[in-house]
Amino acid sequence: MKPGKKPGKKAADFKRSPCPIANTLDLVGDKWTLLIVRDLLFFGKRQYREFSASPERIPSNILADRLKRLERAGLVAKTPYQQRPVRYAYALTPTGADLKPVLLALIEWGNRHIAGTYRPPAERLRKERRR
Amino acid sequence: MKPGKKPGKKAADFKRSPCPIANTLDLVGDKWTLLIVRDLLFFGKRQYREFSASPERIPSNILADRLKRLERAGLVAKTPYQQRPVRYAYALTPTGADLKPVLLALIEWGNRHIAGTYRPPAERLRKERRR
Repeated sequence: MKPGKKPGKKAADFKRSPCPIANTLDLVGDKWTLLIVRDLLFFGKRQYREFSASPERIPSNILADRLKRLERAGLVAKTPYQQRPVRYAYALTPTGADLKPVLLALIEWGNRHIAGTYRPPAERLRKERRR
Repeated sequence: MKPGKKPGKKAADFKRSPCPIANTLDLVGDKWTLLIVRDLLFFGKRQYREFSASPERIPSNILADRLKRLERAGLVAKTPYQQRPVRYAYALTPTGADLKPVLLALIEWGNRHIAGTYRPPAERLRKERRR
């Protein structure tokens, strides 16, 4: 792909290439990150132990790493909700929440091509597509 | 997420959970696989050396592994186009090509949130969305 035209970014600034797919995958292209985004976006989860309790059983070290990366990339923000020990509540930023169409596309593909995957109620999907 | 209802699949059949996002990520959730799908879908690439030549410089062992996985999962099919040594042309199956909405969503997110990423011509994007 050709380098982007926006000022302030040269091809050399990109990890791999100026391709928007490659750069997005550099942030969320792994088996776990989008599951955390899913939990924040669709299941209202906020706390570390809630992500931990999801059925995929994300390993604790991976969860900590992915939350840190998401925060550093500006997709997630955390605020302390408790002191001693300090605990954080996580939330998607608008940039992170804007991944919804990616998640909806993954849901649709999974439902169409992997037999037996969980199908969200049609009404819920319609609502999420509209928002 | 609750187990799916389709016959022939129980929660235990799934690697991590019956979540359609998790299961799709088990197939394509890494930094490279969707770039191969991109090359097949949008750039008409067919041959091993064409994927190798993409600007992200996918390492040869990863390329071989990902093509094998894509084939095993029924997303890509290969046909020999040369004997001695045998060489294969790769193509997306309808199941693989159906990942297009995922790629389009990744392009849109990347273009919106990562400054300077390559923007496909609007007319091309419109066409791809319609097809």
